[in-house]
Amino acid sequence: MSSPDPGRTSPAVCAAPRSGGVGLVETLSLELPDGLELEGGARLAPITVAYETYGRLAPDRRNAVLICHALSGDAHAAGLHAAEDRCAGWFDDFIGPGRAFDTDRWFVICSNVLGGCKGTTGPASIDPRTGLPYGLSFPVVTLRDMVAAQRRLVAHLGIDRLLAVAGGSMGGMQALRWAVDHPDAVASCLAIATAGRQSPRAIAFHEIGRQAIQADPAWRKGDYYVGPAPDAGLSVARMVGHITYLSEEAMQAKFGRRLQDKAEFGYELATDFEVESYLRHQGDAFTRRFDANSYLYITKAIDYFDLGRGARSLAAALARARASFLLMSFSSDWLYPTAHSRELLRALLLNGQDASFCEIDSAAGHDAFLLEHERMAPVIRGFLERVHRRWTGGGDGGEGDGEGGESLAQRRRGAEGEGSG
Amino acid sequence: MSSPDPGRTSPAVCAAPRSGGVGLVETLSLELPDGLELEGGARLAPITVAYETYGRLAPDRRNAVLICHALSGDAHAAGLHAAEDRCAGWFDDFIGPGRAFDTDRWFVICSNVLGGCKGTTGPASIDPRTGLPYGLSFPVVTLRDMVAAQRRLVAHLGIDRLLAVAGGSMGGMQALRWAVDHPDAVASCLAIATAGRQSPRAIAFHEIGRQAIQADPAWRKGDYYVGPAPDAGLSVARMVGHITYLSEEAMQAKFGRRLQDKAEFGYELATDFEVESYLRHQGDAFTRRFDANSYLYITKAIDYFDLGRGARSLAAALARARASFLLMSFSSDWLYPTAHSRELLRALLLNGQDASFCEIDSAAGHDAFLLEHERMAPVIRGFLERVHRRWTGGGDGGEGDGEGGESLAQRRRGAEGEGSG
Repeated sequence: MSSPDPGRTSPAVCAAPRSGGVGLVETLSLELPDGLELEGGARLAPITVAYETYGRLAPDRRNAVLICHALSGDAHAAGLHAAEDRCAGWFDDFIGPGRAFDTDRWFVICSNVLGGCKGTTGPASIDPRTGLPYGLSFPVVTLRDMVAAQRRLVAHLGIDRLLAVAGGSMGGMQALRWAVDHPDAVASCLAIATAGRQSPRAIAFHEIGRQAIQADPAWRKGDYYVGPAPDAGLSVARMVGHITYLSEEAMQAKFGRRLQDKAEFGYELATDFEVESYLRHQGDAFTRRFDANSYLYITKAIDYFDLGRGARSLAAALARARASFLLMSFSSDWLYPTAHSRELLRALLLNGQDASFCEIDSAAGHDAFLLEHERMAPVIRGFLERVHRRWTGGGDGGEGDGEGGESLAQRRRGAEGEGSG
Repeated sequence: MSSPDPGRTSPAVCAAPRSGGVGLVETLSLELPDGLELEGGARLAPITVAYETYGRLAPDRRNAVLICHALSGDAHAAGLHAAEDRCAGWFDDFIGPGRAFDTDRWFVICSNVLGGCKGTTGPASIDPRTGLPYGLSFPVVTLRDMVAAQRRLVAHLGIDRLLAVAGGSMGGMQALRWAVDHPDAVASCLAIATAGRQSPRAIAFHEIGRQAIQADPAWRKGDYYVGPAPDAGLSVARMVGHITYLSEEAMQAKFGRRLQDKAEFGYELATDFEVESYLRHQGDAFTRRFDANSYLYITKAIDYFDLGRGARSLAAALARARASFLLMSFSSDWLYPTAHSRELLRALLLNGQDASFCEIDSAAGHDAFLLEHERMAPVIRGFLERVHRRWTGGGDGGEGDGEGGESLAQRRRGAEGEGSG
C-alpha cells in the first residue's frame, strides 16, 4: 500500500509505473474573459480553466464523464505528458481502456479547480488590475463556484448533459454540488469517500494547516510571490493532511514503531521513527509542487461545503437532483467515514431517488479511494453502463431518463412536507 | 461536556468550581543534588522535583497513592493554592474526601514530571554549569527517567511501597513503567486511557506539533528564553493535540458547523466556525502557561514509550510486575483506543497476572479520563479497597501480598518459555 492523497503524483503510481493507458496527453486551457460571479458576491474575471480530456465524445454526446479532483489534484488525471515521464496522471489506475472509467466507452474530462495552482485561475495568478499576483486579494471561492467554472468548460466542449460526474473526497463534494446545482446537466453522480457536509473535526484539521501556513513569517499575509515561500508552514499543513488520509491500521502496517536509519533510540530530539521521516518527506515534497495560498483557499472552500445549508434539510437539498447516485465509502476511512455516506444515502432514499451504496472493506483509510481500483472498477463500470443504457433508451425496467425515480421523489417530498408542516 | 486535556486548568473545573475538597494546598520541592543517571546515558544534576500531597500517610505506610500527570499537567492535582483561586487542581474531581481517590483513606501524591516546566527540572531550568537555561542542551528524558525521579520522591516521603500508581494518558504509561521497573514498590497500577506503546499515528501527531514549534523562527533552536517565545508554533502544536483529545461525536455535539459571531459565511479567510475559534483560543491560552521546549521533550518521551522494547514481548516485559492492574478505556477515545488496553489485558492474562479491565461508554473521546469521574469513581474506589485489604491481610480469597498471582505468572512464564524455546 502507498499513501497518496487526492491528486498527488503518488509513489504508488511511480513505483509501479503504468504506461498511462490513454497515452500521451496535454493540458489545455479555456479562457473565460467575462469570468464568473461568485457565490460570495464578487466577480472574478478573466478566468482560465486548465483541463484534459481522454477518449472521444460520442456523436450523441451522451458519453461524457467529468472527473473532479481533490484538495491537491490537478487536470492531469491520466496518461503521460511526455514519453519519459516517471509518473502518470493522478487517477491513471482508474482511467483508460478497460479501466473503471473506460476510455473506449466514455469521453473523460478533468479540470483543475478554481482557486488552484495548476493552470486554473487562483491566488498565484496575475490580477490584471495590478499586474501582480492576487495573493489574498483573490476572492474566496466555494465548491459551487468551482462547479460553475466546470459547467462553462463542459458547455464549451459541446456537452449539455454529462453521463456522470465523479470524484473522491473534495471531488465527491463537487459531484454532489453538480447534481444539486445543475440537475438537468447530470445523469449520474459518483460520490466517493466523501460527505454531504464537512464535519467539525475535518474543519479543525484544515484550520491547523491554515494556522501553520499563516504562522510562517515567510507567508507575509499571502504576499510572498517575490521572495521565499512559506514552505515550513505548508509542510506542516501537508503533514496533518497525510495523517488524516491514513488509517491507524495502515500506519501500523506501513511503519509500526520502526526506527529510521538506526537500530537504537538516539535519545535526541531529531527524527527517530520512520513515520516521522515519512511525514517530513511528504511535507517537504509538497512545498515543491503546491502554492500555500491555494491551500488556504481550497481548504476554506471544502470547509464551507454543506449541501443542506439554505435548504430545509439535506434531503430537501438533494431532492432537486435528477441524477442516479453511486456512493462509495471505505471501512477504515476516518476522515469521511461510512456514516457520512450513509447519511447521504438515507436522504436520497427518503426522497425515493435512485441511489446505490457500496462500502469497500479496506485498511488504507481515506487514501483507499485512490488505491482500491481493482475492487472499485467493477462497481463503477456496472453503474455507468446502467445509467448509459437507461439514458440512451436501452431499457432498465422500462424507465426512461430516470422519470420513475423522480416522480417517486416528488411523492415522498409531498409526504415529508405534510409531516413537518 | 468540556474538553480539557491532561492537567490543564480546564473550563469544566472553572465553570463549575469545586471548593477543592482537600482545601488549601501548596506545591513543595524536593532537591536531589546528585540528580539521576538517565536512560540515555547522561547524568542530570541537580534535579528539583515539585510535588503536592493530600491526606495523611497511615502509620503502616500502606495507603500511599501516586498520581501521574499527562502531557501538560503539573503537581497541582487537587485543591486550591489560594482561597480566591478560580480553578482547582487538574484532577480535583477525582481527589478529595469521598472522591475516587479518597483522601480520608489514602495519602495522595502528585509530582511534576522531569522535563516539565512547572517546578521540576526541565529545559527552561538554569544549567548550573552555564548559569543559563538549558534549552536544547537539556538531555532527552524518558518515562523511565520520570518514574525514577518519582521513586526518589516517594522514598523521601518514607514510603517503600505504594498502594497504587495511577494515571491517564501519559500518566498511565508512567504507572505501567512503575509496575515494571519497580515491581517491589507498587501494589497496584491504574492505567487509564493509555497503551503499552505509543502508536505510529500518535507519534505522527506529536511530530506535527514538534515541527510546528521548530518551524517558528522565534524558537531559535530552543534558545528563546531571552526574547519572544515560539508562541505561534506552540499554539499550532496544542491545536493538533486538542483534536486528538476529542471524539468526532463530541466535536459534532459541541460545535457542529455553527458559525462564530455571525449568521452567514463571511466569504473571507478569517475564522468562520466555532470549532476554529475554540481551537485558536486553546492554542493561544496554552502558550501563556507552557514552555515550548518542554513540549518537545515530553512528547519525545511519550513517543519513546514501548513497554515491550528490550523484552521478548509485551507479556514478557509485564511479567516482571507484581502489581494488581486496573485498566480503563473509553469507547470514543481514538488516540488510545480500547484495543490498546485490550492488548495490555491480553498480555497480563497470558501471564496469569491480576488484571481488571473496564471500558466506559463515553462520547467525550480521550478527554473522558478527566471528565467521567462519576462513572469511574466506584470502579477505582472498589479496586483500591480490594488491593489495600489484600495487602494489609484483610483477606481476598486467602491471598497475601499477591503471591498467588505471582506464582501463577511464574508457571505461565515457564510454559510460554517451553512453547517458544
